[in-house]
Amino acid sequence: MIRQHTLALTTDGRGSYEITGQIQPLVRQSGIGAGLCHLFVCHTSASLMVMENADPDVRHDLETLLARLAPDGDPAYRHTLEGADDMAAHARTLLTQVSLTLPVSDGRCRLGTWQGVFLYEHRYRPHRREIIVTLHGE
Amino acid sequence: MIRQHTLALTTDGRGSYEITGQIQPLVRQSGIGAGLCHLFVCHTSASLMVMENADPDVRHDLETLLARLAPDGDPAYRHTLEGADDMAAHARTLLTQVSLTLPVSDGRCRLGTWQGVFLYEHRYRPHRREIIVTLHGE
Amino acid sequence: MIRQHTLALTTDGRGSYEITGQIQPLVRQSGIGAGLCHLFVCHTSASLMVMENADPDVRHDLETLLARLAPDGDPAYRHTLEGADDMAAHARTLLTQVSLTLPVSDGRCRLGTWQGVFLYEHRYRPHRREIIVTLHGE
Repeated sequence: MIRQHTLALTTDGRGSYEITGQIQPLVRQSGIGAGLCHLFVCHTSASLMVMENADPDVRHDLETLLARLAPDGDPAYRHTLEGADDMAAHARTLLTQVSLTLPVSDGRCRLGTWQGVFLYEHRYRPHRREIIVTLHGE
Repeated sequence: MIRQHTLALTTDGRGSYEITGQIQPLVRQSGIGAGLCHLFVCHTSASLMVMENADPDVRHDLETLLARLAPDGDPAYRHTLEGADDMAAHARTLLTQVSLTLPVSDGRCRLGTWQGVFLYEHRYRPHRREIIVTLHGE
Repeated sequence: MIRQHTLALTTDGRGSYEITGQIQPLVRQSGIGAGLCHLFVCHTSASLMVMENADPDVRHDLETLLARLAPDGDPAYRHTLEGADDMAAHARTLLTQVSLTLPVSDGRCRLGTWQGVFLYEHRYRPHRREIIVTLHGE
């Protein structure tokens, strides 16, 4: 059995947004007991992340590191027309994930105790983002 | 339904090569309407990337960043027998993806407007690279 | 056909541990000829990696690079309560993979000649880690 949904989300600009609570109901409604839940973000400046969802400082510190690894407005960039954050956003997307697959067991995504699923917006300004959710299993 | 193909590609050395046009016909020919398309690169110094395919400067700038994050010929490397680019190529592979899953809707990979699928060759010299394409769905 | 297993592993602390030999028997026993093998690590400070498994220096050098990209005990971190390695472990997890899908052909994971599958422990101390293995195919 295959079920497919489009999840449309509006972000408030750069930062990570937990979407676990929007994924689990889709799994439950599908009636799939065991299988997989695949997420795909249809953008090149936003990505997906499975991360600790207890202490928000974790995501603050990830921001600090990503800002070092893929600096905004780096003088070496050639792709600069869309602003200081655009090329950095592409690089952050490369270093994280656009595609993520989660196991489904007993009718829900089987995440670890501290794991949450996040959409990571890498642009400064708010954006509308689409995630394709594909569920399959039996 | 499961369909599997081996895509053999020859690269001209370091750089990213768009393969969207080689993936979509395999999806179409499979007759799968809704499902998933999985790609796996059978190498440890080449990887897969979903990235902006409009402005080639984006991929130029990604090269600039990857060269900083995983420098060629870094004096700290122990794995040096196969040349200055070899250990860097393994590290670039780790920081990107060997495995990538794309949603299939209406008989094609459902990519965003600006998304292309790329094979990323991390070695200086031309190589023959194999990608296993696994399609499943209904 | 869907088959699901939980693989429980004990690590001796930071480093990568090859698990190819624990995955292949699960594939063989499933009776699946062609399909996919999905791995998911249920933790936020350990990850999965497909990497060269011939020369152990490769993994030594990856450690060198990850220690630069996500330094232990960085003074900028706010998430420090669980030790100098904890925030670095979350960042290393983000830069690598919690989810990995491998193609199954002829009843086994179809890996390249030099590819091995590794659990990457990012904490200093030994930990018990769970990986959910989901096999599907025909």
